[in-house]
Amino acid sequence: MTGVLAPGEVVLFILAKNRRFLVCLEPGKLQHTHEGVIRHDQVIGQVPGSTLQTHLGHTLLALRPSLYEVLMSLRRVSQIVYPKDIGYILLKLNAGPGSCIVECGTGSGDLTTAFAHAIGSSGHVYSYEQREEMLAVAARNLANVGLSGRVELKQRDAADGFDERDADALFLDVREPWLYLLQAWEALAPGGFFGAIVPTTNQVSDLIAGLEGARFGDIEVCEIMLRSYKPVAARLRPADRMVAHTGFLIFARRLEEPTLAPTEPKGEDALPDEDLEGDVETGLDSLTPARDRAE
Amino acid sequence: MTGVLAPGEVVLFILAKNRRFLVCLEPGKLQHTHEGVIRHDQVIGQVPGSTLQTHLGHTLLALRPSLYEVLMSLRRVSQIVYPKDIGYILLKLNAGPGSCIVECGTGSGDLTTAFAHAIGSSGHVYSYEQREEMLAVAARNLANVGLSGRVELKQRDAADGFDERDADALFLDVREPWLYLLQAWEALAPGGFFGAIVPTTNQVSDLIAGLEGARFGDIEVCEIMLRSYKPVAARLRPADRMVAHTGFLIFARRLEEPTLAPTEPKGEDALPDEDLEGDVETGLDSLTPARDRAE
Amino acid sequence: MTGVLAPGEVVLFILAKNRRFLVCLEPGKLQHTHEGVIRHDQVIGQVPGSTLQTHLGHTLLALRPSLYEVLMSLRRVSQIVYPKDIGYILLKLNAGPGSCIVECGTGSGDLTTAFAHAIGSSGHVYSYEQREEMLAVAARNLANVGLSGRVELKQRDAADGFDERDADALFLDVREPWLYLLQAWEALAPGGFFGAIVPTTNQVSDLIAGLEGARFGDIEVCEIMLRSYKPVAARLRPADRMVAHTGFLIFARRLEEPTLAPTEPKGEDALPDEDLEGDVETGLDSLTPARDRAE
Amino acid sequence: MTGVLAPGEVVLFILAKNRRFLVCLEPGKLQHTHEGVIRHDQVIGQVPGSTLQTHLGHTLLALRPSLYEVLMSLRRVSQIVYPKDIGYILLKLNAGPGSCIVECGTGSGDLTTAFAHAIGSSGHVYSYEQREEMLAVAARNLANVGLSGRVELKQRDAADGFDERDADALFLDVREPWLYLLQAWEALAPGGFFGAIVPTTNQVSDLIAGLEGARFGDIEVCEIMLRSYKPVAARLRPADRMVAHTGFLIFARRLEEPTLAPTEPKGEDALPDEDLEGDVETGLDSLTPARDRAE
Repeated sequence: MTGVLAPGEVVLFILAKNRRFLVCLEPGKLQHTHEGVIRHDQVIGQVPGSTLQTHLGHTLLALRPSLYEVLMSLRRVSQIVYPKDIGYILLKLNAGPGSCIVECGTGSGDLTTAFAHAIGSSGHVYSYEQREEMLAVAARNLANVGLSGRVELKQRDAADGFDERDADALFLDVREPWLYLLQAWEALAPGGFFGAIVPTTNQVSDLIAGLEGARFGDIEVCEIMLRSYKPVAARLRPADRMVAHTGFLIFARRLEEPTLAPTEPKGEDALPDEDLEGDVETGLDSLTPARDRAE
Repeated sequence: MTGVLAPGEVVLFILAKNRRFLVCLEPGKLQHTHEGVIRHDQVIGQVPGSTLQTHLGHTLLALRPSLYEVLMSLRRVSQIVYPKDIGYILLKLNAGPGSCIVECGTGSGDLTTAFAHAIGSSGHVYSYEQREEMLAVAARNLANVGLSGRVELKQRDAADGFDERDADALFLDVREPWLYLLQAWEALAPGGFFGAIVPTTNQVSDLIAGLEGARFGDIEVCEIMLRSYKPVAARLRPADRMVAHTGFLIFARRLEEPTLAPTEPKGEDALPDEDLEGDVETGLDSLTPARDRAE
Repeated sequence: MTGVLAPGEVVLFILAKNRRFLVCLEPGKLQHTHEGVIRHDQVIGQVPGSTLQTHLGHTLLALRPSLYEVLMSLRRVSQIVYPKDIGYILLKLNAGPGSCIVECGTGSGDLTTAFAHAIGSSGHVYSYEQREEMLAVAARNLANVGLSGRVELKQRDAADGFDERDADALFLDVREPWLYLLQAWEALAPGGFFGAIVPTTNQVSDLIAGLEGARFGDIEVCEIMLRSYKPVAARLRPADRMVAHTGFLIFARRLEEPTLAPTEPKGEDALPDEDLEGDVETGLDSLTPARDRAE
Repeated sequence: MTGVLAPGEVVLFILAKNRRFLVCLEPGKLQHTHEGVIRHDQVIGQVPGSTLQTHLGHTLLALRPSLYEVLMSLRRVSQIVYPKDIGYILLKLNAGPGSCIVECGTGSGDLTTAFAHAIGSSGHVYSYEQREEMLAVAARNLANVGLSGRVELKQRDAADGFDERDADALFLDVREPWLYLLQAWEALAPGGFFGAIVPTTNQVSDLIAGLEGARFGDIEVCEIMLRSYKPVAARLRPADRMVAHTGFLIFARRLEEPTLAPTEPKGEDALPDEDLEGDVETGLDSLTPARDRAE
């Protein structure tokens, strides 16, 4: 998307104190903010990154929003998946152009939207949700960002099974993900990527036990923490407060055998602590020692 | 990529204690591991997720690697960008199918590879690196994963300027990123996404000061921390040690005006601490309160 | 302090939803809460840990407060030092019964109170503060907990020097601690313990540079993070939000020589990352490998 | 302890790269280090904080150790309690001069030593441990730091009950702390302080359930994380790796009633997230708003 800001386009406005909101540009429309009114006609035709003035003389910045900003602005009717978690989920599920991804627990459609963005026009997302009002919100959120065409929303309890087979990846955002593991195994391609998010440690334990009994392996459990800094050059410091917990992320792979010794953790020593981010040796090329980033 | 494991394909082997490595399958070849030998011919023709046995009777799991595993196995001749950071960088730079991304500081080509994966066949990556031996490693790493066609590597000091114009995003992984800001501004499209990674707080301060003086705004500084858990259902606990620091991430947008009041932090109160993950209000639709994820 | 709750004693009340406050018991007095009125006479004579009822029938728990609760309830006229930091400061400054401690930046007297508690009746605290209104608050806070006798408050700018010599430990909670280092060196005993807290990374850098130029060594810089959990057995999870930053803690020792090679960090490798919590080998006894805590 | 370093005294030596060890000074003795030999006679009579030279010309710093350094150097035959946790435990258990503290799970005597230091000559520590070899190590560690007189070590299973009554605080460092709660209740004074450390989330859940059924209340669960920085003024950055997990800390108070509504968490909302560090209102004095620490 290039060129000047055009009618019908969604634009990000940033005001003082980092107040941000998204607006769909309409000729003749007025936008009310706590720092005054801006006319959409002032914005239409401007280059992104331009500064405008409200009728009270306050400055306002107009930009094209990123997927990140779209995700943060989605209409929410459920707990969302945070961007800090979404980035890592996309990577761990190997989501990319052309991927076929199944999701259970559409919620407000935040992760659905991120999947739809990442897979491109050649991929596809199938998302299951039982609650009608959620599906309606998710459908509207997807439509607002023009990604409806890549997503099939299904109002169904996936406990009855997924329609898909040979999916590249499958993600569960439900209260009792261990009830959906046999169904997930059926829907995934051999070796396919499984992921889930749950808020409590009890659920993590139940899900690990379920995965071990359901032909999944290479289980990983982690949390992602984002720490923001106040961007002031002469007084750099972390923000005073932070989101301390959104959910635990659990990842696994579909295996052929019911249980697999190598990836079945046997206790304390199963996961060597040196393998902090799952360092992988390569037989493709000899591994040379890492050097530090220049300071 | 579907079907059984085939000759010429890169495969991920997982042995006991989570020892992992990547191997390119060749008929007739033997793979030596610390738990015995596996013949490639045992693996070829197997379904991904299959369990095999070494000549010593130890089990081994064979899977298709994800981009994540490829990144962790890249030949490294420099400090790498970790997956925890890569996921968030892709999101903040709005990288997706079709993006045009400029990078300075190719290093071992880890982030380059992630960009090339995310942008699909319709996008393009231009990566600058002065050190010849790094470029050679990065080129080989990209070739190994079949992504060379989407990336143009340039052995040049980008201080002399980037060739590109109207890039969607630009990322700096260099010692003194503040020396490249005017060049970055020229290469980016209006409103384009800027990112950088630096290891020290002194560099963060210098970069913030540079960005404020170089027509960039909406500056964000953060760290991503990944905390792993030992995936044992009955004895769930975090891993004993973790990577405590890889680098500080700095993001900004190209603006038209030299300085912009709204995004210029004025001090303590510039970034309200409630805006923890940069929550965005939406004018598209009324915002309903979030509800908690089901436990 | 033993026996039943008595008149004149400070008591901790805990109501539903973890609402907590401190009250000094007075015969005949009424205590108003958001869940009804409790008569002090109901509390006087009760065993600590007893449950009482307000006139509206809500239950309330009466306990003797710990130093921790006293610290959290101090009248605050400045940024406080948090208990998570205080515990570590006491340990690093070797504060214990009999210690002589000098402090600069009394503030509301929170750390002063913790020092006064830890040093017992045989120790002494000298605390400097320029702002009269702060000193008045600190004096009242100390009086409220009966620790005034161990603390001498001085309304003075310590830039003019401390009166004390041969102090066991000295702590700076001021904006520019590097301006007080020569004075601190004079006040400390040989090898004495130095500590400081500052909120920004720029201040940390300035203080490190100052310490290296002022006959201090064995410099340590750290942060303490406290992560709380919701104490629900069947749904255990971290609290949603946390305090992300209070301050950076800097510790050092007074040395005889102006600069000392061993403790002068020379760069990247100066602090081996394995020495995560400053592990100390012992010549007293052979060191046997640590074993894990029983799960 | 003042004056020059004397024979019989334990001294901390610090060499290059922050290599540290403790030595008991003996006239005529030689100390071998990886950077050469130092004669104890060179050290005896020196002022603490002095710099000495090994026979190879390397410098070495001689200091009196703090309790912190003593703790880090203890002979370890079990998982230790880390200083970052010890500081907070001392504060939460209200340990100070004169306290009477009961401990179960002496281990190597690290927390025992910290308790013994904090309580002064007027307090007392009673520590239970079943394993004879542990008790021998703990006894030697306490003797080495001259604190044996304040501690009574008991080789017994505390499941049979503690001998003590009206203890100020009691701490459990055992595999199944929920089996000791009735005994702990008996040993504690009314309203007394209870604490425990366990490594897994499953144990935390079991302990919370046990405490709620055993007349304990005001339950707090938390973790303390210590993040170290490389103390280099011009290149300030966190250490690359950190200890990610030592144990979960659980605190509670002895109550008179079997169950108590106010402190019994009812679910999601039981612990308001604003009460991040258990802020306490005070009825002693009106609470004025906190101001930020000067930058």
